[in-house]
Amino acid sequence: MPELSTAAVHTMTNKSWSLQQCCDAYATAGFGGVSVWRNVIEPIGITEASKIVRASGLKVPALVRGGFFPAFESTLRQAALDDNQRCIDEAAEIGAEMVVLVVGAVVGMPLAEARKQVNEGLSNVIDYAAKNKIKLAIEPLHPMYAADRSCINRMQEARHACEAIASPWLGIAVDVYHVWWDPDLEAEIALAGEQKTLFGFHVCDWRPTPRDLLNDRVLMGAGCIDIKHIRACVERAGFEGLNEIEIFSNEKWATDQEDYLKDIAKAYQQHV
Amino acid sequence: MPELSTAAVHTMTNKSWSLQQCCDAYATAGFGGVSVWRNVIEPIGITEASKIVRASGLKVPALVRGGFFPAFESTLRQAALDDNQRCIDEAAEIGAEMVVLVVGAVVGMPLAEARKQVNEGLSNVIDYAAKNKIKLAIEPLHPMYAADRSCINRMQEARHACEAIASPWLGIAVDVYHVWWDPDLEAEIALAGEQKTLFGFHVCDWRPTPRDLLNDRVLMGAGCIDIKHIRACVERAGFEGLNEIEIFSNEKWATDQEDYLKDIAKAYQQHV
Repeated sequence: MPELSTAAVHTMTNKSWSLQQCCDAYATAGFGGVSVWRNVIEPIGITEASKIVRASGLKVPALVRGGFFPAFESTLRQAALDDNQRCIDEAAEIGAEMVVLVVGAVVGMPLAEARKQVNEGLSNVIDYAAKNKIKLAIEPLHPMYAADRSCINRMQEARHACEAIASPWLGIAVDVYHVWWDPDLEAEIALAGEQKTLFGFHVCDWRPTPRDLLNDRVLMGAGCIDIKHIRACVERAGFEGLNEIEIFSNEKWATDQEDYLKDIAKAYQQHV
Repeated sequence: MPELSTAAVHTMTNKSWSLQQCCDAYATAGFGGVSVWRNVIEPIGITEASKIVRASGLKVPALVRGGFFPAFESTLRQAALDDNQRCIDEAAEIGAEMVVLVVGAVVGMPLAEARKQVNEGLSNVIDYAAKNKIKLAIEPLHPMYAADRSCINRMQEARHACEAIASPWLGIAVDVYHVWWDPDLEAEIALAGEQKTLFGFHVCDWRPTPRDLLNDRVLMGAGCIDIKHIRACVERAGFEGLNEIEIFSNEKWATDQEDYLKDIAKAYQQHV
């Protein structure tokens, strides 16, 4: 049974809470860290956000999220690069270890072209990340998000993108929700371990059949993913970071968040 | 612009219609074929269904659907085999070229075990298919159906299953909805052509973001899939069968089906 101190919670998991509420609640509950979504920084500014996070004593595995590189117009691609730099700045300011990248996809753009633009975007931003000592973690998203969120949908594709750049600052965030179905998952995790690209590990669970494509994730143990097995794989591959809990759930967001956090803690200890 | 005679429509596309209504409407509209779902056979029996289909003059690429091999209990696995034999019998009776297989998956069963049981199921049913001269077409389903419908989610996995059995009666049905996102799609289609396993080609389109995991497919051209390109790939690979139109849509099922069929015909000619 893993200690809660081995886990970080994504602020989006408790969508209605401010950054202060998240940090207070996570620290009080005994979690080891918080992964900060930019929407909770926005209303208070990065200076205030940094103060809150640093005062909490929580580790910060990730700032979420950068990426979204591809676009039809070059001005939009440049805007994306600028935004990724700001994101890296913010990560440095709050003491985050990495920025999680949802790489992007554009309706109407062939995926091969989108993937090319992602590689270009990564090339253009990696030096800035390295200079600021912030890791960039490509999160392969489930293929059901290939149309408009991510043209990188499997560990293998993320690995190819990493190999093309070959920087110690570029790696992969493995979210069980996105990759659990992949027959190559175990081999790719092992390979990521060898290549030192295993930057993040996210947990939640998959409801068969999800009632919503975006916000129907379930608590660990309430779905069909063998999370313990995948955790064993990432640990065998040398992963030593915090396990990040990231659950988007319309159902759970509508409940009492204090009670919900207790359920999250229990689910983490029993099923991760 | 492809002739409508190059297309077959799946009866499930017009879910509220009987087999007779489907056959009348598809033949009148000028479509070349009908792919028959078992739910429209059930209320009238296979003898009557066969009469209707044969009288229509329509070709029958597929009977839909067999498969669902994995189960925790051996009695259930045997029941699945029996049902697949009945399915092959029905296909022979209505003059279908193939049975489409949704291979199955079971919540709580590791996917590796489910895939093993699928291979066993295929081994156990292939001789019966060959004897009856009915092709079996594995349809890789989108990874979002891996929990409870299909443990085969990419062309590559379907190819591995075909290679393990190596029968001219076992092949693949390529449905653009399930595989459009896969970076290996073009290579796998070419390989299927070489291996003579390219049995079926299904079209519809992907709405970004689907509002429902099962029944929110859209008309060809109304989504983000480059169907013309994929059709060119399958034809380059030697595919000469009918292109099958298969659209599950709560939205469209609620509309006038005669009008809808006209839209389907138009969408097929413009976007396939």
